Amino acid sequence: MTLNTENLLILGGNIYAEDDVYENGFIKIENGLITEIGDLSQLTHSDKYREINLPHGYSVIPGMIDIHIHGVNGADTMDASQEALDTMTKTLPKEGTTSFLATTMTEESGAIEKALKATSDYMSSRQTEGQAEILGIHLEGPFINPDKAGAQPLNRIQKPSVDTFKHWQAISQDQIKLVTLAPELDDEYELIHYLKEHGIISSVGHSSATFDEVGEAIDAGLSHVTHLFNQMSGLHHREPGIVGASFLREELMVELISDGIHVRPEVIQLAFNQISDERLILITDSMRAKCLKNGQYDLGGQVVTVKDGKALLDEDTLAGSVLKMKDAFTNIQEFTTGDMRSAIKMTSENPARQLQVYDRKGSLAPLKDADIVILDENKDVYSTLCKGKTAYLREDDTHETN
Amino acid sequence: MTLNTENLLILGGNIYAEDDVYENGFIKIENGLITEIGDLSQLTHSDKYREINLPHGYSVIPGMIDIHIHGVNGADTMDASQEALDTMTKTLPKEGTTSFLATTMTEESGAIEKALKATSDYMSSRQTEGQAEILGIHLEGPFINPDKAGAQPLNRIQKPSVDTFKHWQAISQDQIKLVTLAPELDDEYELIHYLKEHGIISSVGHSSATFDEVGEAIDAGLSHVTHLFNQMSGLHHREPGIVGASFLREELMVELISDGIHVRPEVIQLAFNQISDERLILITDSMRAKCLKNGQYDLGGQVVTVKDGKALLDEDTLAGSVLKMKDAFTNIQEFTTGDMRSAIKMTSENPARQLQVYDRKGSLAPLKDADIVILDENKDVYSTLCKGKTAYLREDDTHETN
Repeated sequence: MTLNTENLLILGGNIYAEDDVYENGFIKIENGLITEIGDLSQLTHSDKYREINLPHGYSVIPGMIDIHIHGVNGADTMDASQEALDTMTKTLPKEGTTSFLATTMTEESGAIEKALKATSDYMSSRQTEGQAEILGIHLEGPFINPDKAGAQPLNRIQKPSVDTFKHWQAISQDQIKLVTLAPELDDEYELIHYLKEHGIISSVGHSSATFDEVGEAIDAGLSHVTHLFNQMSGLHHREPGIVGASFLREELMVELISDGIHVRPEVIQLAFNQISDERLILITDSMRAKCLKNGQYDLGGQVVTVKDGKALLDEDTLAGSVLKMKDAFTNIQEFTTGDMRSAIKMTSENPARQLQVYDRKGSLAPLKDADIVILDENKDVYSTLCKGKTAYLREDDTHETN
Repeated sequence: MTLNTENLLILGGNIYAEDDVYENGFIKIENGLITEIGDLSQLTHSDKYREINLPHGYSVIPGMIDIHIHGVNGADTMDASQEALDTMTKTLPKEGTTSFLATTMTEESGAIEKALKATSDYMSSRQTEGQAEILGIHLEGPFINPDKAGAQPLNRIQKPSVDTFKHWQAISQDQIKLVTLAPELDDEYELIHYLKEHGIISSVGHSSATFDEVGEAIDAGLSHVTHLFNQMSGLHHREPGIVGASFLREELMVELISDGIHVRPEVIQLAFNQISDERLILITDSMRAKCLKNGQYDLGGQVVTVKDGKALLDEDTLAGSVLKMKDAFTNIQEFTTGDMRSAIKMTSENPARQLQVYDRKGSLAPLKDADIVILDENKDVYSTLCKGKTAYLREDDTHETN
């Protein structure tokens, strides 16, 4: 019988299924979907599957979902090209990412519109199995506060506008899923109201909002926080700011860049204590230099210097990161008391729930997409499947057999 | 038989004993000590006790211990007089305080020395049952950081000095129990080392110490934080400061002014979430204006304006408080998820443990001092006993019977 590469059987390893961990388990995959998960002792063998036998100590986890990523491997969403997006979808599985939001920058409207169009085109015509899936667009700016611009170009910032957003959402074919904005500049929270009505996530970020303004924005529909701590009003004991709101308001899902550079490990532990894995979402916020050598790179028309894991616009301004999701995943277990299951929640389940795609992604369960990451005994990525097709297999390794 | 006023029997009410709550309980008091606590059904009556019958809904809790109080009712520790200290020990039971640390201010050495001598004299010769007990002295400054002086006079600040401290401790007859200082100005943490060796609490306060400096100070013997959030380095995500250390370092007991003015209620909830009632100690940091009318009062030779519960040195600088312990006690239950038992820990048990007097104070248990607060159904103070003698009984009330 001819082996069907669409039908896979993963054997052995600790399988982190949605409701259980199988310490020596199996996963059956057919037509890009998970069809069965269980303990190896329960498996009825069949020759219709290509088998992937895992050594002892390997783990199988749901594919990671990066809802805040600008670029990787020389490519950036703002390049507005099919080639750039193809580079992203092909490169990201190496770090365990199986789906993501292509994230735009604050640039002139024409450049943003080109990026929206290119991404939407890619999603409707080029998206394919065996590569990371673009789940939509994260519009980071231009509706932000100049006081908290960070690496977003100051002269391209615009006041929040429902009309502008409508125009852009039409160009994107309704693919904008998340908007980072400064609520304090949104008159009567008009844009937040509009986004809420249309099922789009409003996120406070690059903002000087007070604690009470965040509260009002929550009433209007705000449900998300962009890269906690970075470029936002901090915690003061009489004005708790966005940081205080992130800590205290259960309505908010909270992005965190867990590279240990944007936020110190001890403060990541603090955020984890307070916010917990119920509300944290790990992101990379990475730029095109990720996977490339140290050097100088473009970010929104600006020169960014990358060296030793830091991307700097100038001496004091971090400009995105070169963090990989697999490192966000291991770092959080190193920096905090969170375990593997906890890291899975923050890299896969929570972003899937927040994007309302948990019916098909975000956990290992029957009838969900076979977006799967296989980690070796050191929690490094051994192989990644996107919708059941091998998107990455470590070259120095040959554990895969027929 | 003649009633002996030294022998009391409190009957009824919810009695918050050390290890249990008796919903309809009793406490026997003889010679200033608690001799028995139990459920009313277990009581064997005797006519040798004067009985205090409590209505339904009243509660009995351990006397509160205020380890950071400058003054009350026109009197201040820095007045350096027996009359001032007598006013303090007589007034404080009204707010539920049965013992405290008389707290000095940053002033010129001569003034501090007079206050140390006066307090030590009072403790050795005037201290009496039926008034709040002075447990020692809290030396707040002058070893602090000018950048975080707050209401402490700038020109009186001194560099931490073991020699100066030794001289003062001799004057105080070893009654200095707690020293607020800026560790970053203490060369090689010499004073902190010295205090640790002599069983005196070092507290970081009025300080710009970094997170790592607090860590080094902990290694040297630091174990306490003076009024969390106020006049200290705040939480930054790459420099967590003293606030971050208070949140994360389990070695530290942490003072908090829970008036809702020094720290916003939401941030008090946050501190409670993070630090818990295991490490928080509620204090008043009150000044002489407490229990007096709005107006202008002296604090360390400076004019402080008191209005509507706020004591202000100028528009931006809080100068101590007019908070009462009984309000700290109820506020914390209003601002946080902490309950009555939790409030008891933070107002009585924790300060007693930190001062190493838990063998005789800090809970209701046999053979401990009968320092007892009776709260009415609104948690207001109905009566306070200091070592078994009535120090306060609300005038409009006559529940006490023979």
